[in-house]
Amino acid sequence: MAFNKKVAIVMGSKSDFDIIKKATNVLESFGAEYKVHILSAHRTPDEVAQLATNAVENGYAAIIAAAGKSAALPGTVAAYTTLPVIGLPIISSFMDGLDSLLSMTQMPQGIPVATVGTNAAENAALLAIQIIAVSDDNAKNALVKYKADMRKKVLHDNESIN
Amino acid sequence: MAFNKKVAIVMGSKSDFDIIKKATNVLESFGAEYKVHILSAHRTPDEVAQLATNAVENGYAAIIAAAGKSAALPGTVAAYTTLPVIGLPIISSFMDGLDSLLSMTQMPQGIPVATVGTNAAENAALLAIQIIAVSDDNAKNALVKYKADMRKKVLHDNESIN
Amino acid sequence: MAFNKKVAIVMGSKSDFDIIKKATNVLESFGAEYKVHILSAHRTPDEVAQLATNAVENGYAAIIAAAGKSAALPGTVAAYTTLPVIGLPIISSFMDGLDSLLSMTQMPQGIPVATVGTNAAENAALLAIQIIAVSDDNAKNALVKYKADMRKKVLHDNESIN
Amino acid sequence: MAFNKKVAIVMGSKSDFDIIKKATNVLESFGAEYKVHILSAHRTPDEVAQLATNAVENGYAAIIAAAGKSAALPGTVAAYTTLPVIGLPIISSFMDGLDSLLSMTQMPQGIPVATVGTNAAENAALLAIQIIAVSDDNAKNALVKYKADMRKKVLHDNESIN
Amino acid sequence: MAFNKKVAIVMGSKSDFDIIKKATNVLESFGAEYKVHILSAHRTPDEVAQLATNAVENGYAAIIAAAGKSAALPGTVAAYTTLPVIGLPIISSFMDGLDSLLSMTQMPQGIPVATVGTNAAENAALLAIQIIAVSDDNAKNALVKYKADMRKKVLHDNESIN
Amino acid sequence: MAFNKKVAIVMGSKSDFDIIKKATNVLESFGAEYKVHILSAHRTPDEVAQLATNAVENGYAAIIAAAGKSAALPGTVAAYTTLPVIGLPIISSFMDGLDSLLSMTQMPQGIPVATVGTNAAENAALLAIQIIAVSDDNAKNALVKYKADMRKKVLHDNESIN
Amino acid sequence: MAFNKKVAIVMGSKSDFDIIKKATNVLESFGAEYKVHILSAHRTPDEVAQLATNAVENGYAAIIAAAGKSAALPGTVAAYTTLPVIGLPIISSFMDGLDSLLSMTQMPQGIPVATVGTNAAENAALLAIQIIAVSDDNAKNALVKYKADMRKKVLHDNESIN
Amino acid sequence: MAFNKKVAIVMGSKSDFDIIKKATNVLESFGAEYKVHILSAHRTPDEVAQLATNAVENGYAAIIAAAGKSAALPGTVAAYTTLPVIGLPIISSFMDGLDSLLSMTQMPQGIPVATVGTNAAENAALLAIQIIAVSDDNAKNALVKYKADMRKKVLHDNESIN
Repeated sequence: MAFNKKVAIVMGSKSDFDIIKKATNVLESFGAEYKVHILSAHRTPDEVAQLATNAVENGYAAIIAAAGKSAALPGTVAAYTTLPVIGLPIISSFMDGLDSLLSMTQMPQGIPVATVGTNAAENAALLAIQIIAVSDDNAKNALVKYKADMRKKVLHDNESIN
Repeated sequence: MAFNKKVAIVMGSKSDFDIIKKATNVLESFGAEYKVHILSAHRTPDEVAQLATNAVENGYAAIIAAAGKSAALPGTVAAYTTLPVIGLPIISSFMDGLDSLLSMTQMPQGIPVATVGTNAAENAALLAIQIIAVSDDNAKNALVKYKADMRKKVLHDNESIN
Repeated sequence: MAFNKKVAIVMGSKSDFDIIKKATNVLESFGAEYKVHILSAHRTPDEVAQLATNAVENGYAAIIAAAGKSAALPGTVAAYTTLPVIGLPIISSFMDGLDSLLSMTQMPQGIPVATVGTNAAENAALLAIQIIAVSDDNAKNALVKYKADMRKKVLHDNESIN
Repeated sequence: MAFNKKVAIVMGSKSDFDIIKKATNVLESFGAEYKVHILSAHRTPDEVAQLATNAVENGYAAIIAAAGKSAALPGTVAAYTTLPVIGLPIISSFMDGLDSLLSMTQMPQGIPVATVGTNAAENAALLAIQIIAVSDDNAKNALVKYKADMRKKVLHDNESIN
Repeated sequence: MAFNKKVAIVMGSKSDFDIIKKATNVLESFGAEYKVHILSAHRTPDEVAQLATNAVENGYAAIIAAAGKSAALPGTVAAYTTLPVIGLPIISSFMDGLDSLLSMTQMPQGIPVATVGTNAAENAALLAIQIIAVSDDNAKNALVKYKADMRKKVLHDNESIN
Repeated sequence: MAFNKKVAIVMGSKSDFDIIKKATNVLESFGAEYKVHILSAHRTPDEVAQLATNAVENGYAAIIAAAGKSAALPGTVAAYTTLPVIGLPIISSFMDGLDSLLSMTQMPQGIPVATVGTNAAENAALLAIQIIAVSDDNAKNALVKYKADMRKKVLHDNESIN
Repeated sequence: MAFNKKVAIVMGSKSDFDIIKKATNVLESFGAEYKVHILSAHRTPDEVAQLATNAVENGYAAIIAAAGKSAALPGTVAAYTTLPVIGLPIISSFMDGLDSLLSMTQMPQGIPVATVGTNAAENAALLAIQIIAVSDDNAKNALVKYKADMRKKVLHDNESIN
Repeated sequence: MAFNKKVAIVMGSKSDFDIIKKATNVLESFGAEYKVHILSAHRTPDEVAQLATNAVENGYAAIIAAAGKSAALPGTVAAYTTLPVIGLPIISSFMDGLDSLLSMTQMPQGIPVATVGTNAAENAALLAIQIIAVSDDNAKNALVKYKADMRKKVLHDNESIN
């Protein structure tokens, strides 16, 4: 299966890779094309700007930006693109990621970040596919099937305990 | 200007209308088509399900769901559609909306809600337009202009104080 | 011992089973009849609605709904029944369950959820028995004995350290 | 309309009366019999114990206990009765009632308090009626009508904005 | 060494004993007389009332009350005595004891609880000795020495690293 | 009425005077002698040290230290005296005084601060009188009467609403 | 008086001007040279980068960056300069500025932001002068006098109430 | 390499040494001179005052003060010096260091503490070097190189995953 647009993923630090892996697993299971970057809003701001500026013409539909702590990455990405930016707050060492959750959601007017739950990499990937699916029936149908499978899984679990 | 897709807005209570107005103002300034609904996840669950189920074929690109307190509405909408659902947490009487912010972001795996900031209705609207813009050049160009205007406004403010 | 009404238990995910086990142990020690379901407000909304809609005629006195994170399940159950719904917030990975505690208590007007403490499955079960006991003297007498036993246990502990 | 059981209400301080009024309004609209008390867990512990101890034989189905700050009242009531105790956290001057919300929910094992939202007096009253309704068809039918009315109200609001 | 008054300690549950041990170690190192009780505000309210009511005539200068979660114990003790009650919040499973810290500090007017830090059993013991020392020179002199020893210990540590 | 010991009060800033007034009103109603100081842990550390160092020989039984924000004052006082130091957290502009509440309770081992609730000046005063009452029967009897009066007031309020 | 270095101030939005005014008042009372900018990390990232990149050669000793909500501005400034960046969290509409406080303090390793209190514009200005004073005796002497004046003011207040 | 000023480090307790080690490692890698002290604001206030009072003439450019819990140390240091004081909040047992983070940032007007993130010892060291670098070109050049190295490291990580 191939979709009409790709997903860009950027994380602030190599140490976030284990969480990101859960997102790429979902993307692969859907057959979505994606590319992962390690770039920092503070250490490599120019490369972040470049990635974001070129994202539309490079065929991306959305950019997943994962970061912990003060988590400026998604906002920096959003500053340079018209694409929806999906913020994935990473739990580090403070209040289970409340710091990064607030940094991503409480954006200034004009620069939204579409934030998902703390460490919720699967949901970040699914949201990216939902955005692709707005104009791609293959993606939409894959999501319909995904939802049906989730439903079956729950009903199976329900039967298995009775 | 006309985009290829519309935006659905649903709020849990009539009292959220003043916040929602800020979103519809943004949508109108972009020339985006939208429709506003008052529907409750708990009082009118069937109508919420119906709205969400039909949203794709009714030509919507995204559904903005605004709710305060335990804020189940975006999740209920998301249960019934493959469209991206934009969660808009409304500040009511508890910790400046922390309750609704957490309810919207901390969704179970498989059902993402694209959450923006508390009372950030403008950003909810802009995110919806960003999602439309993934496959609509008119929307994309309007966003490019919007970003340029924001930039000019800041630079103007900067000059005016010196 | 048999009571005049039963207790329904529903959890959002199989992974909550270990917590729920503490509730069923209490129910069994009282001789209360109960049935456990795994159903998700977002993945199987129709089955949740069905369970709740039929709960009165199926002889239930209360429905214990356990969920973590944004924890919409008790509210969804409550939307479809006149029975008291007991919300059991499950601690997952964020601030020791503050997210689910707020989601369950901060319900909109008209849809109460009777929330107990985080992971407090025993108290959820006892509250269900208290509700049965309002119209069932066997249950009431069993609770009187339970309270007396708790008292004895504390007094025994107190003696044992002196 | 008359139900087979009554509702006891107890608040820790006269200053909580305005909130409690919202609960008694709901009870009166359902025709439920109730009695309001001002009693303090710390200033009049004996009277609280007496109220709770006699609540079953006095024909109550549930006791609504409202308190702010450290909010020990519902727990003290629950120590002396087998009836379900409904905790109503009152917002005073600290973090919008987080103190009383935690005090009521985080009860020790064996002493559940059925906690509703902060200042959610209407929901406390409705939960009391739901508990009565477990064994009283008049109450149950009144709740069915209440839910239908809520639904109509939302649908009416929804129509009025389009 | 013997002081003119004793210290009463009461904990809500046997499981708090490890924390309490740190308090009794301090009391013993000062030669203070003390007695430990396991009594619950909700399971054995009468025994708690009795302990508190008789505390003055039994020669106590202060009562240390340790409890976790909703932590009603210190307040219940304070309701029945004119002695200073020292609240020791125990960390259990929620936000590192924020629940018990708030329950102990946010007392209603007229019923103060002298709260120390979460799990700060040594400080609870020292505060009790400080209260004794107000009218007991032996205790006062012992505290002077304790403070001097603390000072020496820090200065020794400071030297050891340079 | 005269007690055998006095109460020292110190606040960090003149702006805390309105809160402190509630404490001095209580002290005056009990006939307790007291003296109020405005001294800052950071701006006048020497004077704070002097006040604390001389407090025992000046006939004080306890020192009430009121401060907002980072609220170092009670700890600084406690560093220089063996008297019990009562911490009174003042609500300023951040999370209803959570900052000062934590600063006062979370003291290092060896330096307890007896913390009361946020802005709870009356309770700070009562705690000071309780400490005096440990060795002063006049104070003890005055507290017994105060408690009885509180009880009567509640019972009167209870009667007045029925 | 003239110092050997200047202070740059940058705020994210014109609406922060009232807070910033408190900082410039302090700077002016010290005779420090400063320049105020309105620049946004997300709307004018290039101008922020330019300001920061040139700050050393333009004779600045420190850059005060004020921002509310997700408050990326200080970090963005810090990415482009070796100067100390002073973060001033502005209270907007969420939990009294906890969002911006966390965003500024929880910076990734390698990019420190010297954060002061919420809305603490005077302290931001004083910290800037302290940094200048490390290598400027005029600034150091002015600070010595400032501290002495603060001390006198407190002692005066202390006398005025006795 | 040698800088024109040194860095003083003070921690409240020997147990903070592991965190401080991360700061001294950074200082050593820059060739900065530093001296570490263990001194407590409450146990050895005189020695803290002495260290701070003499810091300017002893050639320090900044004082890093690390402390956990109520964390009064940086403020006490700041009371006695005109040097910038860098507050390093140490995570102990309560809400991941929120207590010490608030104690350090929410300082009274006139006594700023330059606070970095919880346990962010490297950033504390870097901030000290940034302060030195304001008037020391060697330090400035070392920071430029440090930033370039960080950038290279990220770009290397980015390449290594593709």
